Amino acid sequence: MLLEETIERIRPLDRSLESEVQKRLDSLTKPQGSLGKLEELARRVSVIQGKVPPQLGRKLLFVFAADHGITEEGVSAYPKDVTAQMTYNFLRGGAAINVLARHYGVDVEVIDVGVDYEFSMMQGLCNCKVRRGTNNFSRGPAMTRPDAIQSIETGIRLVKEATPRELFLLAAGEMGIGNTSSAAAILCALTGAAPREAVGRGTGIDDMSWERKVAAIERGLELNRPNAKDPLDVLTKVGGLEIGAMAGVILGAASFHIPMVLDGFISGAAALIAQRLCPRIQDVLFASHLSTEIGHQQMLDELKLSPVLDLQMRLGEGTGACILMGLAEAAAKLLGEMATFESAGVEKKLS
Amino acid sequence: MLLEETIERIRPLDRSLESEVQKRLDSLTKPQGSLGKLEELARRVSVIQGKVPPQLGRKLLFVFAADHGITEEGVSAYPKDVTAQMTYNFLRGGAAINVLARHYGVDVEVIDVGVDYEFSMMQGLCNCKVRRGTNNFSRGPAMTRPDAIQSIETGIRLVKEATPRELFLLAAGEMGIGNTSSAAAILCALTGAAPREAVGRGTGIDDMSWERKVAAIERGLELNRPNAKDPLDVLTKVGGLEIGAMAGVILGAASFHIPMVLDGFISGAAALIAQRLCPRIQDVLFASHLSTEIGHQQMLDELKLSPVLDLQMRLGEGTGACILMGLAEAAAKLLGEMATFESAGVEKKLS
Repeated sequence: MLLEETIERIRPLDRSLESEVQKRLDSLTKPQGSLGKLEELARRVSVIQGKVPPQLGRKLLFVFAADHGITEEGVSAYPKDVTAQMTYNFLRGGAAINVLARHYGVDVEVIDVGVDYEFSMMQGLCNCKVRRGTNNFSRGPAMTRPDAIQSIETGIRLVKEATPRELFLLAAGEMGIGNTSSAAAILCALTGAAPREAVGRGTGIDDMSWERKVAAIERGLELNRPNAKDPLDVLTKVGGLEIGAMAGVILGAASFHIPMVLDGFISGAAALIAQRLCPRIQDVLFASHLSTEIGHQQMLDELKLSPVLDLQMRLGEGTGACILMGLAEAAAKLLGEMATFESAGVEKKLS
Repeated sequence: MLLEETIERIRPLDRSLESEVQKRLDSLTKPQGSLGKLEELARRVSVIQGKVPPQLGRKLLFVFAADHGITEEGVSAYPKDVTAQMTYNFLRGGAAINVLARHYGVDVEVIDVGVDYEFSMMQGLCNCKVRRGTNNFSRGPAMTRPDAIQSIETGIRLVKEATPRELFLLAAGEMGIGNTSSAAAILCALTGAAPREAVGRGTGIDDMSWERKVAAIERGLELNRPNAKDPLDVLTKVGGLEIGAMAGVILGAASFHIPMVLDGFISGAAALIAQRLCPRIQDVLFASHLSTEIGHQQMLDELKLSPVLDLQMRLGEGTGACILMGLAEAAAKLLGEMATFESAGVEKKLS
């Protein structure tokens, strides 16, 4: 219900604003186009918001934690317990995403959407657990269809409850040992890519583990036969609860016309699910960076997005997205705060 | 005197610290190497400072303004007066660099090192005018050798007077209509590159102006015969006063072991001059971004530096450097503030 309603509410952007933004950009005291990708960031944020210059506000990043049954197959370099342990680390402010979020002035909300662990009441942890992790998708479906829908609706609901009109930029990150396996399986299921070409090293596995990972994903696709035409079926069969929740945040952001910053590989899988549910979400998406995880470029190609940064990162958590939020804010400020040739009394280009 | 003293004081870094930084990086709660270029930034800042983790502090950017006689040849898209007009814009806080510096918490100092205009006493403008612009180097030397030395020593002096031990990161930007011509001529003079391959579009000139620009630089090199083995001769014959000052800041930063962030093409020419005066300066240099100005990649190759960002920018002023200062600070904070596997009780990689 909420999912369908949200998709229906996603309206096209008013593109007529583009020429107004461009005119303003070209009136600022700099050679035309000389701020490169920053100008594009400013232009897109303006058009998505429908405001020239963009209105600054809260930068919010949801970090979703969930477990994955596929870890039973030995596909990760870290033990499964690390998902819960890192969730505690997020709450105490010691993870990379906490440091970057403080630096760039980004608010972080940590959500348990499916960790296989019972957290005691923890200050700051949002309990939206759909279930205690997915099943091992190499032996059967990862979850039920209602679970998949619930995970997406969790993301949508979080956006709705965050006072959308105060949000300047939104992003979603994740923690979930085993989730590059799920993200790669989604990429393969939706695009027909071969696991050998779409599966990467995740947190840093060796050749033997990589072979196991490819084999597990091949088995999972073979056994579950996810229907490429039905993104909910793909999420159900080989997905993850945090991936569903991130897809929900994307749909929510699109429905409120909030610029939505993607992170890396897992975030890209969520965007593919959201795109297949509603192609129009692309209008609000920003690809923050190119991950070193090999399938990421394929995902961005599918999403028709070009990454702003290439910092050779592969951490997740929302770390790449967080850096781009700082840069997109800088771009918006350039549009709002720079003097014009006229106001500064600077002569224009010789014609 | 000051120049020679400074070069003599540039000592090698203590590389033994590298393994200590690496050990700390690998103890933090993230897969090894997963923060990519951020880890390299943190590592280099640490080693340059000689402190693990690095000590945070003031981020300072000098913006040097100067005029260029070569503008008489019609090599720029903007009239020469724009140098002085933009200097006023910097002082009023309306230029791109002002907006970015406020966003990233960078202090900006604006220095007149050679604008062909008499500024009345202006709040915030540092008067270090060596002379009112250079001569047209396509018709004779740009300046005298003492002028060139004075411009470099201006940069060195500014670093010395800025309380070096409080500086966390240093950068230098510029404003000078015509200065891509001078920077390209320096690149050609020092490396033997052909002007046709090293000269770009600057602020955005058309084909005819580009041909004029190439011809003027060819004439200037032919006529002045700058000695590639004598960087001061190159600066004297085809250089600019802001380029000399930036080279001085680089030498000053190297002498105090302060991480020095380069901007784009003009900044690269200054780094080449500094490198030929003292190759050891490379130890403290960071290439912030790759400019779209065509000769920039050649410069970075000469400097053996790899740019962190590629934002398709070509504005100068220190805009690219400013963005990298924000990112380098984030990297340093990661090293200082992230929890370790041990402190956070997170299990390590399975072996």
